Amino acid sequence: MTMYELIQAKRHGEAHSDDEIAYLVRGITDGSIPDYQISAWLMAVCLRGMDAHETAALTAHMAASGDSIDLSIFGTSTVDKHSTGGVGDKTTLIVAPLVASLGCKVAKMSGRGLGHTGGTVDKLESISGFETALSPDAFFHQVEQIGIAVVGQTGNLAPADKKLYALRDVTATIDSIPLIASSIMSKKLAAGAHAIVLDVKIGSGAFMKTREEGEALARAMVEIGRSCGRKMRALVTNMDLPLGYAIGNALEVAEAIEILRGEGSPALREICLALAANMVAISRDISTEEATAQVTEALDSGRALAKFAEWIAAQGGDASCAEEPARLGQAPFLRTICAPCEGYLTAMDAERIGRAAMLLGAGRATKEDIIDPLAGIRLCATVGDKLCAGDALAVLHTSDETKFAAAEAAFLSAMTFDAQPPKTLPLIFSVIE
Amino acid sequence: MTMYELIQAKRHGEAHSDDEIAYLVRGITDGSIPDYQISAWLMAVCLRGMDAHETAALTAHMAASGDSIDLSIFGTSTVDKHSTGGVGDKTTLIVAPLVASLGCKVAKMSGRGLGHTGGTVDKLESISGFETALSPDAFFHQVEQIGIAVVGQTGNLAPADKKLYALRDVTATIDSIPLIASSIMSKKLAAGAHAIVLDVKIGSGAFMKTREEGEALARAMVEIGRSCGRKMRALVTNMDLPLGYAIGNALEVAEAIEILRGEGSPALREICLALAANMVAISRDISTEEATAQVTEALDSGRALAKFAEWIAAQGGDASCAEEPARLGQAPFLRTICAPCEGYLTAMDAERIGRAAMLLGAGRATKEDIIDPLAGIRLCATVGDKLCAGDALAVLHTSDETKFAAAEAAFLSAMTFDAQPPKTLPLIFSVIE
Repeated sequence: MTMYELIQAKRHGEAHSDDEIAYLVRGITDGSIPDYQISAWLMAVCLRGMDAHETAALTAHMAASGDSIDLSIFGTSTVDKHSTGGVGDKTTLIVAPLVASLGCKVAKMSGRGLGHTGGTVDKLESISGFETALSPDAFFHQVEQIGIAVVGQTGNLAPADKKLYALRDVTATIDSIPLIASSIMSKKLAAGAHAIVLDVKIGSGAFMKTREEGEALARAMVEIGRSCGRKMRALVTNMDLPLGYAIGNALEVAEAIEILRGEGSPALREICLALAANMVAISRDISTEEATAQVTEALDSGRALAKFAEWIAAQGGDASCAEEPARLGQAPFLRTICAPCEGYLTAMDAERIGRAAMLLGAGRATKEDIIDPLAGIRLCATVGDKLCAGDALAVLHTSDETKFAAAEAAFLSAMTFDAQPPKTLPLIFSVIE
Repeated sequence: MTMYELIQAKRHGEAHSDDEIAYLVRGITDGSIPDYQISAWLMAVCLRGMDAHETAALTAHMAASGDSIDLSIFGTSTVDKHSTGGVGDKTTLIVAPLVASLGCKVAKMSGRGLGHTGGTVDKLESISGFETALSPDAFFHQVEQIGIAVVGQTGNLAPADKKLYALRDVTATIDSIPLIASSIMSKKLAAGAHAIVLDVKIGSGAFMKTREEGEALARAMVEIGRSCGRKMRALVTNMDLPLGYAIGNALEVAEAIEILRGEGSPALREICLALAANMVAISRDISTEEATAQVTEALDSGRALAKFAEWIAAQGGDASCAEEPARLGQAPFLRTICAPCEGYLTAMDAERIGRAAMLLGAGRATKEDIIDPLAGIRLCATVGDKLCAGDALAVLHTSDETKFAAAEAAFLSAMTFDAQPPKTLPLIFSVIE
């Protein structure tokens, strides 16, 4: 077997055997297959596709290419949630304590943000004292004691995927459903949870632009996970506008606390309840209706908020923010952006708003950039609102007022106004089982 | 403009502009575009294609990426001939002096052989004293004086093609008509001749396996050359069996002399006359019929043989071989291979015969191998012959008798016998103008 033969076969649309995929992943991981062969193969995959069996094999071999987290001491109670990346997506901060308050085990590794999307680890680090690097012992102990721990990604998780992703990023081979699905799922499988709920975002702020693409990706990932023995479900959700009102690290933590207190954005609450209910439903083998009743009760009773505070404290953070969100702090410079004209707000481009927040200091343009935890945007209006000229659209937050000009321009370029109200799109398009 | 955008565009089947192709070829030549991006682009080209305009632009930019030979002092009288690579293809040795004897200027650079196909330079070097490395001055002077010089490829001809070919060779992106056409034609354009006749081989011993593919490649190359101001014609010819009876360097020179003496294989004579007639016809703007009459006369009158001897002598070779081919020498070990059964010889796989000759020492498996100039195969039978068991099929020649066993096995695996005579295929399928 040679890489040449694999490229040739894929070029002609043939399917790879499990052995061939194993050979490929081994060669990617140990560096014995040169990049120029891998990238030719990647382009052939983009244009010829991979079937479900090949995609599952690629995922499983990539998951096994490095470290993996063995959560088997928790039996089948572990649950995980993954979002394909959104703007203002603070659902982990809400959903994780919510399901943990119902006895599910959340032993989660999360990423940092890059570009226009934020990372859960960055958000958590905006809480004073919160420690995102735990030793394996401390991590397992905390999950056992309180049912939840969220740490930064450590170890050598799915190195084959890391290598492949870096090449895809520079060879225009990112947007291929089997490649996206295997990339995400290889890391999820290596991270060890028994039940996984995926939140596949579609719309202007997401990878997948259409519902059809989003559902195809969701189906591919659900199939992969199930073929590897995991309980799977995926929600396909709307990312045409940011999720909730806050974009930026401390601002999003504050908004997560609002939801846990029974307040805040109805859309954000709806998505969090749906994600949590599906996690509980597949983990416990109960109906989604029953699970929905349980998670709603846990949220409205304050049990989820109490679990949140317990979690923050367990990782060294200042848990008083759960009762007093103002303790999260506020950026020294605020600027209110007003509607430039009268009319309906018909669209808010999530990606552009994400970029505006990044320009304020809330995100990283490159991996080396340092985040301003207090920077970001708090929206005052949402799609469908009727506004008069001068009505507040948003408040920009930053620690560096020289950043306002570029951020304001980026923010305004994300807004669309019209004399007619927009069509309303559902928040959750579909649930893929 | 970035290479990423070019890959993305080609992935989606878009055509590149001339500026984009220029950027690409510049980046390939100066090494600023990494191999992994080039190979992703190559695969996208294989699967999405390139139109005639893009292919011509790629060729012209590759031709201009390094040295080029300025033959303009010879006006429009220069002619060149290129074969896409065959087994036993000694046509240059015959056609070049033949057209030179009619006043065409042949200022030709030829390659060395690799794998199962031979190279003209290796064949010429089997003539005692023949010098294939001439200074530019000596080369031009000889063309001016006697109308013909053939040297090994020197200088930095189409380095972008060299780089691209090396990558295609290891990424399963060789067999793409726009890529093959631009690769061949970039070197032909840089080599400077005004009129070019291509011999596109199809069949078991060639790149192109079917007539349709061969004609498509021929048309692509004729279009490219014409769009760059050259006079073009292409013959699509049969390479299901070796051309003539000899495979191996000195053996092929001897066979070329036979043809120049009016003897030898009728098929080889037919192809040489056709190539030469088309070269003269496009160079002189005369009808192919008139040109055929001229080349036939030049061959049959001995004028072509005299020009051959003059040429060999001019480059320091022992021209007495033109009168006395035995002076080319003979390998110390000969083995006759006999038909293992009675029946019609229905197929002789040219590629396998080429490999058998290579195993005898006539060719190189790697660039570093040293050629045995006397090694090779002289066929005693051809497709369509009715043979009895024990009739001679071929004589193997080598300077190392340990090589007989493997070569004999390879040779016999190339032969197919049947009780019924084979269908006869034309030698020249078509002429593309």
